[in-house]
Amino acid sequence: MPAKKLTSLDDLYLEMIRDLYNAEQQLTKALPKMAKAATDERLSEAFTNHLSQTETHVERLEKVFKSLGVAARGKKCAAMEGLIEEGKEALEEEMEPQVLDAALIAAAQKVEHYEIASYGTVCVWAEMLGYDDQVELLTETLNEEKETDELLTEIAESSVNAAAE
Amino acid sequence: MPAKKLTSLDDLYLEMIRDLYNAEQQLTKALPKMAKAATDERLSEAFTNHLSQTETHVERLEKVFKSLGVAARGKKCAAMEGLIEEGKEALEEEMEPQVLDAALIAAAQKVEHYEIASYGTVCVWAEMLGYDDQVELLTETLNEEKETDELLTEIAESSVNAAAE
Repeated sequence: MPAKKLTSLDDLYLEMIRDLYNAEQQLTKALPKMAKAATDERLSEAFTNHLSQTETHVERLEKVFKSLGVAARGKKCAAMEGLIEEGKEALEEEMEPQVLDAALIAAAQKVEHYEIASYGTVCVWAEMLGYDDQVELLTETLNEEKETDELLTEIAESSVNAAAE
Repeated sequence: MPAKKLTSLDDLYLEMIRDLYNAEQQLTKALPKMAKAATDERLSEAFTNHLSQTETHVERLEKVFKSLGVAARGKKCAAMEGLIEEGKEALEEEMEPQVLDAALIAAAQKVEHYEIASYGTVCVWAEMLGYDDQVELLTETLNEEKETDELLTEIAESSVNAAAE
């Protein structure tokens, strides 16, 4: 079976939007479990808030698809599967509540950095391709991912890690 | 089969060092392929240079294991497997050389961000645990991962993306 010939940055961009669309959808399923498992109240709240942000990120990607004139359709994101798998492994191991929180933060920060890398890339590509409306949508999401990463670092440093010592 | 009971941040830290050890080893196998596939000379050189850095990162992790008094042993890193799988998919699709370079950069930046998140976490934990020698080793690696990520952004912006348009 010959692979579809990809010849343009445009095609690559659409591939990555599809990858992100699937990744964000996977994340909407994982975050409620993480919020439930977290013992630190601020952490649980951060996961719950990020769930509602993630739902908005899905909607923004749907606007990107619409703007491109194609149907909103994901493409299995193997990397996010691996990251979520890692988070699940943490939940399956027995550990003290504060240590579990530290593990959840670590897993979540890997997810955030995956998204920061991906949205960073599609922002640059959308700009090169002249999709100004999409740059705006994707930059909003990129900034929210960065803010979430910073918030998680703050929570880790201020409470969870100290308690886990 | 009961899971090993994890009770301390120390255990979690060792788990993550093992995850990184496996991730870096996976990366030493992937980078030569990426260097060979890249058409942009600066990009190919960046991958080759990062391979030698990655070999140093493996050695630093071996020093961490030694300092902890345990054998150097990896733990399958599902996330890195997913990330490398994604890079491989890019290599299997047919695309213009400059577009392939853009895809390689995107895949490599996801890997770098995975490592930035992980080394960021173990740096904080090593500090909390009072492992000052290990903080130093891990911070050196963290900084090199960040520098590589920035270099890739620079290459993407300056040449590859412009050419791919």
